[in-house]
Amino acid sequence: MYKNPANTLFMGKKLVYMPECHSTNTLALELSQKQDWSEGAVLITNHQTKGRGQQGNVWISEIGKNLTFSVVLKPTFLPIKDQFLLNMIASLAVKDVVQSKVAEKVSVKWPNDILIKDLKVCGILIENQIQGTTFTKSIIGIGMNINQKGFHQNRATSLTLQSGIEYCLQDLLEEVLSSLEKWYILLRQNGTHRVKNSYHASMYGINEIRNFRSDDGDFEGSIQGVDDYGRLVIKKGKEVLHFNTKEVQFDFEPFK
Amino acid sequence: MYKNPANTLFMGKKLVYMPECHSTNTLALELSQKQDWSEGAVLITNHQTKGRGQQGNVWISEIGKNLTFSVVLKPTFLPIKDQFLLNMIASLAVKDVVQSKVAEKVSVKWPNDILIKDLKVCGILIENQIQGTTFTKSIIGIGMNINQKGFHQNRATSLTLQSGIEYCLQDLLEEVLSSLEKWYILLRQNGTHRVKNSYHASMYGINEIRNFRSDDGDFEGSIQGVDDYGRLVIKKGKEVLHFNTKEVQFDFEPFK
Repeated sequence: MYKNPANTLFMGKKLVYMPECHSTNTLALELSQKQDWSEGAVLITNHQTKGRGQQGNVWISEIGKNLTFSVVLKPTFLPIKDQFLLNMIASLAVKDVVQSKVAEKVSVKWPNDILIKDLKVCGILIENQIQGTTFTKSIIGIGMNINQKGFHQNRATSLTLQSGIEYCLQDLLEEVLSSLEKWYILLRQNGTHRVKNSYHASMYGINEIRNFRSDDGDFEGSIQGVDDYGRLVIKKGKEVLHFNTKEVQFDFEPFK
Repeated sequence: MYKNPANTLFMGKKLVYMPECHSTNTLALELSQKQDWSEGAVLITNHQTKGRGQQGNVWISEIGKNLTFSVVLKPTFLPIKDQFLLNMIASLAVKDVVQSKVAEKVSVKWPNDILIKDLKVCGILIENQIQGTTFTKSIIGIGMNINQKGFHQNRATSLTLQSGIEYCLQDLLEEVLSSLEKWYILLRQNGTHRVKNSYHASMYGINEIRNFRSDDGDFEGSIQGVDDYGRLVIKKGKEVLHFNTKEVQFDFEPFK
């Protein structure tokens, strides 16, 4: 069903389509171990039966309406201490494409959901393999809501719901792979500073007073950005707090 | 062929034996994704046909003579910035068991080979899965030379070559799993400081003047330890240098 993108150097040059699979991330990892896939290989499906989101949440998608795929990268140049840069470039790659389609503001909700205004349009799940102190492989799973018109989840949306247009999935896949290739090449060429600046500038809720929930209870604060470990940095009064993925939740609504 | 260990709480309680497989790490990852294995599950083989070592080196093992297995852990409590602690506990777990069998000094060659004097007796290959800023799964692959008497590799040895004794593989497996369980529980209970101290005290070549090779050429220096990112810290004259896994090699022979 899908063809290789015409406008990339290496991203998606190997493209495997499965009509149905449990999880594109899991299958991409298995197949890429057995067959030694080259960098940029993509596994895409029309029907992911057991997709996983951040923290084990299930991501439900109507068959054939959306883009559900995984990209295999081998960022051996990247010290693992800098691993969050992979989350950043994947988020920015999708954000740029979505922003080119809609008038509403598109942002990245830490660590890597893409929102149109306050509604989620894309989830990204990254799984890395590490040996010693370096990366061997990174699987970037992307689930983008494109032509689906109804959602079970609250606060979910799709490109078509936002713009009224029905999209060609192949064209959008090409755009996202091309955008990911651009950001990945920038990262390799030591564009770390630009990646971080762009991610911060794109962060949902940055510098706004919001409600947060941690193990220590609810509090008000404002997101300052992410630190070098990818942790969310929140200013709470005069304190500056650093949170890992499971340690904090935050409200979608602006604080009143 | 192998039975579950009697003396552990969770390590090896699920134990899958395959007479032959490509790589226990790859297969353990695949099976543990499909079947949701519990923490401490072990995959062990008598014949690993495509075993991988650090940096893609091949590890050759005579069939049925040695221990070749992978342990599945889910260190979700561990921030990924602390990931090298997993390398440390795996290395220390094996080192303790080997040291209990031989008179010669056993040490850990960074990042995680186990040496008897100057000879390698065990290689460890760790592969981690990360989501956002936290671990989801860690596969710890261990290849220990036990009863093998000849090696193609230089500087390789086995327990039997060092002690003259032939070992029961089942008994040794139990000892290693029990040791790994002990170190893992210590790590969970926030024994980070003790893990780091023990690892430093066990490091091969620490504080000795040695020859090193980096991209910038050969130099003399002395290992100071590892930093918080797991990088090797070497003092070269008055400079203190930090190296990732692929960035430095060092001689086995003391500098003369």
